[in-house]
Amino acid sequence: MTALLLIIVGGLCAVAYGIYTINDVMRRDAGTQRMQEIAGAIAEGAQAYLRRQYTTIAVVGILLFALLSYLLGIKVGIGFLIGAVLSGAAGFIGMNVSVRANVRTAQAATQSLSGGLDVAFKSGAVTGMLVAGLALLGVALYYTFLTRQLGLPPASRDVIDSLVALGFGASLISIFARLGGGIFTKGADVGGDLVGKVEAGIPEDDPRNPATIADNVGDNVGDCAGMAADLFETYAVTLVATMVLAAIFFSGQTDVGGRNILETMLIYPMAIGAACIVTSIIGTFFVTLGANQSIMGALYKGLIGSGLLSVAAIAAINIVLFGGFTTSFTTNTGVTFTSLSLFVCATIGLAITALIVVITEFYTGTTYRPVKSIARASVTGHGTNVIQGLAVSLESTALPALVIVAGIIATYSLAGLFGIAIAVTAMLALAGVIVALDAFGPVTDNAGGIAEMSGLPKEVRKSTDALDAVGNTTKAVTKGYAIGSAGLGALVLFAAYTSDLNYFTQNASATQYKYFQGVSVDFSLSNPYVVVGLMLGGLIPFLFGGIAMTAVGRAAGSVVEEVRRQFREKPGIMRGTDRPDYGRAVDMLTRAAIREMVVPSLLPVLSPVVLFFVISLIAGKGQGFAAVGAMLLGVIVTGLYVAVSMTSGGGAWDNAKKLIEDGHYGGKGSDAHKAAVTGDTVGDPYKDTAGPAVNPAIKITNIIALLLLAILAHS
Amino acid sequence: MTALLLIIVGGLCAVAYGIYTINDVMRRDAGTQRMQEIAGAIAEGAQAYLRRQYTTIAVVGILLFALLSYLLGIKVGIGFLIGAVLSGAAGFIGMNVSVRANVRTAQAATQSLSGGLDVAFKSGAVTGMLVAGLALLGVALYYTFLTRQLGLPPASRDVIDSLVALGFGASLISIFARLGGGIFTKGADVGGDLVGKVEAGIPEDDPRNPATIADNVGDNVGDCAGMAADLFETYAVTLVATMVLAAIFFSGQTDVGGRNILETMLIYPMAIGAACIVTSIIGTFFVTLGANQSIMGALYKGLIGSGLLSVAAIAAINIVLFGGFTTSFTTNTGVTFTSLSLFVCATIGLAITALIVVITEFYTGTTYRPVKSIARASVTGHGTNVIQGLAVSLESTALPALVIVAGIIATYSLAGLFGIAIAVTAMLALAGVIVALDAFGPVTDNAGGIAEMSGLPKEVRKSTDALDAVGNTTKAVTKGYAIGSAGLGALVLFAAYTSDLNYFTQNASATQYKYFQGVSVDFSLSNPYVVVGLMLGGLIPFLFGGIAMTAVGRAAGSVVEEVRRQFREKPGIMRGTDRPDYGRAVDMLTRAAIREMVVPSLLPVLSPVVLFFVISLIAGKGQGFAAVGAMLLGVIVTGLYVAVSMTSGGGAWDNAKKLIEDGHYGGKGSDAHKAAVTGDTVGDPYKDTAGPAVNPAIKITNIIALLLLAILAHS
Repeated sequence: MTALLLIIVGGLCAVAYGIYTINDVMRRDAGTQRMQEIAGAIAEGAQAYLRRQYTTIAVVGILLFALLSYLLGIKVGIGFLIGAVLSGAAGFIGMNVSVRANVRTAQAATQSLSGGLDVAFKSGAVTGMLVAGLALLGVALYYTFLTRQLGLPPASRDVIDSLVALGFGASLISIFARLGGGIFTKGADVGGDLVGKVEAGIPEDDPRNPATIADNVGDNVGDCAGMAADLFETYAVTLVATMVLAAIFFSGQTDVGGRNILETMLIYPMAIGAACIVTSIIGTFFVTLGANQSIMGALYKGLIGSGLLSVAAIAAINIVLFGGFTTSFTTNTGVTFTSLSLFVCATIGLAITALIVVITEFYTGTTYRPVKSIARASVTGHGTNVIQGLAVSLESTALPALVIVAGIIATYSLAGLFGIAIAVTAMLALAGVIVALDAFGPVTDNAGGIAEMSGLPKEVRKSTDALDAVGNTTKAVTKGYAIGSAGLGALVLFAAYTSDLNYFTQNASATQYKYFQGVSVDFSLSNPYVVVGLMLGGLIPFLFGGIAMTAVGRAAGSVVEEVRRQFREKPGIMRGTDRPDYGRAVDMLTRAAIREMVVPSLLPVLSPVVLFFVISLIAGKGQGFAAVGAMLLGVIVTGLYVAVSMTSGGGAWDNAKKLIEDGHYGGKGSDAHKAAVTGDTVGDPYKDTAGPAVNPAIKITNIIALLLLAILAHS
Repeated sequence: MTALLLIIVGGLCAVAYGIYTINDVMRRDAGTQRMQEIAGAIAEGAQAYLRRQYTTIAVVGILLFALLSYLLGIKVGIGFLIGAVLSGAAGFIGMNVSVRANVRTAQAATQSLSGGLDVAFKSGAVTGMLVAGLALLGVALYYTFLTRQLGLPPASRDVIDSLVALGFGASLISIFARLGGGIFTKGADVGGDLVGKVEAGIPEDDPRNPATIADNVGDNVGDCAGMAADLFETYAVTLVATMVLAAIFFSGQTDVGGRNILETMLIYPMAIGAACIVTSIIGTFFVTLGANQSIMGALYKGLIGSGLLSVAAIAAINIVLFGGFTTSFTTNTGVTFTSLSLFVCATIGLAITALIVVITEFYTGTTYRPVKSIARASVTGHGTNVIQGLAVSLESTALPALVIVAGIIATYSLAGLFGIAIAVTAMLALAGVIVALDAFGPVTDNAGGIAEMSGLPKEVRKSTDALDAVGNTTKAVTKGYAIGSAGLGALVLFAAYTSDLNYFTQNASATQYKYFQGVSVDFSLSNPYVVVGLMLGGLIPFLFGGIAMTAVGRAAGSVVEEVRRQFREKPGIMRGTDRPDYGRAVDMLTRAAIREMVVPSLLPVLSPVVLFFVISLIAGKGQGFAAVGAMLLGVIVTGLYVAVSMTSGGGAWDNAKKLIEDGHYGGKGSDAHKAAVTGDTVGDPYKDTAGPAVNPAIKITNIIALLLLAILAHS
């Protein structure tokens, strides 16, 4: 119980940090009347959107809550609710801080660059710590309640199913938030740019553009709330999946060497999470602008600091929980490893994070070959820019894949499937500081917009632009991290699926797990139903991505029509004598995003269920389970590549444009610049809608499969 | 022996048809002096390119011939040579007909549309029939030689290995030809368009553009020779893989019911091939322009006619070979099915062809939603055009995947893995007529170019344009077919891999297959090395596609520089007083294409070998084999989606441009048209370089794995 208490204290640290920092940020100067007006409009739009989004999700959520409670009992239903509500809360609070910090960042930037960085980063850190803290608290508190208050055995189905449902709740919010937010933000961005920059020839964030407030709203609902929900989900789901594996691997192993091994193994991943929250908080204090004024350098100091401290913290946990590094364990499946092996696995997880950050920076940074090649290709036109961008996007999948594969092999060799799970847990334990780096992006983006719209002096815009450029890179880096961890996390979920299935079929009798009686599952690749599952799973990210891209195109098209209409009907807008109707664009996008997010979200939710029943009907339950298992892997394999290629490619296009705007290859206004704007436009839905939304799609497919097993076992 | 003789006669029919038709085409009027000059320049460029390409391949080929002969014996080496030489011959002859038919088509089009269609289609049919005929003859003759002349047992390793090597020879040519040809043709096309249409504002095929001859050369070396090599390979490899499966499944089954079952099953796929060559030849006579002057209708008549006749022909084969439809067989692995089941499987293969043709037409035809949506998106600019095109390209993977999955389930339920193999064999048996439809495209494309350059009257250009537009659709349709059949064919190869591996491990002893002694392979999805293999296999098409796209971008960029240089140094070119130096562009592209094709070609060749040895070193041989097996499936799963999305998306972009040029959404010269040209440019390397080259990449990975097994078994 002491360990659990400490874990909960760790989670509460994050919340305390959040409350303290919110107060700190809110105390800052909110700038002029005009600035506050603009910020108010952004905040209003963002809140209106999020209200509508949550209302829609609530309808689906309540239905699912009722269904799960009916099928699996109220404990499972409540687990689902906890996951959904906390995930929503992390996004909601984060976004509310973000829409207040933007104007304060702009105001602080009027004084100094470091002041702007301070406000923006702190507000991002609130979101980051809340994501990690609330996810950890949700899992730890509910686990404590179930095992301590209700006295359920830690490895019992009730506990496992309730935790899986908690992950599902988070997933549900996540897929809706990522898709809905992504469609909103890129519909606004693409549509606004097309009609503003390209047609009317006015700069970005020009107050005459009726889509400009919507664009700033989009940054908050997509890049802040959507991303927070995504990482909350990955965090929660990975933690849960690791605990499910621990329950399966160590169930019944009590009192060996005086320790309750099962409990210790269940607590270990949560302890890593708690310790890394503390190291992440400490890491935020390392973020200070050095003498060289390098913003990226300041952020990296925080990240590296947290990472190194985390290694030490995890070592300490191993000493405390396992009594040192030499203690040896054997899973129920016969894999033996030591405490040291687990520590090394966790360190590998942290190393994977570092490598993915470096690789993503290589593919999206302006100083390296890929981005330069796109910028150079822009000189010969729109077509070659897009061709080169696509080439980079395809190519950028290779190194992350090799890192992940090497990680799988190394950790599996050290400690089997549990080793992989611990590595991902450690990787995600840094979510707090990574999200902080990312959530800082929309704040600076907004700050720039507010500076532009309220006519602040040029030097301020220069400061916010510098912050914004770094925000672009950190956003790309976080996406790489999110996808890498999602892919590995999904592998852990897949392992939980096969282990669970194995458990049910082996323990099936006339009285329990009746459905699984006589079922034998052949997961061999030479089973054609496995091939079918792999192919259909592989299809999901492609189809899902296609639908998401279409949705953005449609939303952007309607923004273009709306802005053109306003320009036509109120010619005073362009002359600056008439005010555009910002609310209309926000409203329209809200409706479009909510409408468009539902169907694609259902694709990964329904696919495993439909596949299972169809194949069961054709070839029996065993083949149904085999096909679903293969589908889970199929969606991971193609999902990883589709997501990485989209987010890296999109980031590269974006920064190729920035490179040209900085005066290379012809500079602003040249034909190369026009071509680069096209590439950036294409990259927008790639990197901010379709690509990131593939993450939750991968995991939701996996978690639905786990729930399906639970429901069938219950029947 | 009678059956074998008849099969060989079937193959000879194709050759006879080829010779007859070549003479027929060559007798046609070759037009004016000017037309012949232009055609001569194209022919010269194409021959020069092919000579260089084959010389380069020959170096690699001779090395591999020596290596295979040394490792596996001279019979295997000769098999490799046969595959390589015949594949090269099919492409070489086809291209030579094509570069002579183009000018004759242009001349015939001066008389009538139906005259133009006649010449173009006939020359395409030569390529088509040679592809199918030479592939069948190669396999059948070498099989006859090995089993009848040398008296080797039909299921012996020598025979199997030699046939697999034949497939490998074909694969080698195929990957080089597809990539090299693809880079040449799209480098010329993209580069020429960018500098000609966009910068200089001169129409396509304008004789003032120094890249215009290169563009026409590209049509022949890419779309004709490259495509022919690709389908030759798919045909040969599928036939071989089906025979390997037959050898494994029916080895030792002699004299049941008076028939030698093994021999019959080995002959059955070849017999289907022979019969369908005859039905394809008959089908070509159905291609006549009806009263409605619909070119597409005329071509479809040929396709439908061949398809229906093929069903009847296969039924006849089942009656002759199996003594009716009720005869029942049991494989050595215990699957029982009847002759009727095999017939139904073959019919399903033909049905898959039909469905894929229909689906591809839906996604690339100008009258349906997808192409219209891209054309509409062009109105709002370059960015939305590309976004919508990418959306369509991602979405277009769904229906083909569902058809293929349904086909797998249905045929597997009917007759196990052998059922799948027979379905693909039947699907490919129609290659003759399908290739005819496709190879007709570059001829009409060239004819249009020649008409333009030699200043023929506008009405002629109208006829050739009508033929060319249809060529675009048939090219897309053929690509869909090529990829669908390649994906299914690769599955058969994968089945051959697992069956072969199973055979070696079960029969391993101190005296034979020593390498496999004590090796046990776990192909289960819960084996992490399987996951690793799937992920790395899945990576190949992405990385390969990325490299191919980069190569095209680079080649196009150098064409742009060259053309700009010529315009600058000889201002007379644009005034029409000076002749551009066409040869320079052709030369430059030849060098670029040959240089760029080598590295990506090695990726799928080396990947399985490297993976096997690395994983074997880390985790033992068994895991090495498991990882390689999983890699084969991984490359099929993502390869199918990457290839389908690229070819369908590219076709849709192309026709969206055509739709706008036909006067919709603003028409020629509008901003929408400019955006559509960008989309078309992006689609070019997608559909004609990277996408189609993924086909041979998928299969070469699989066939290398089979060879690896053979070599290890031999050691």
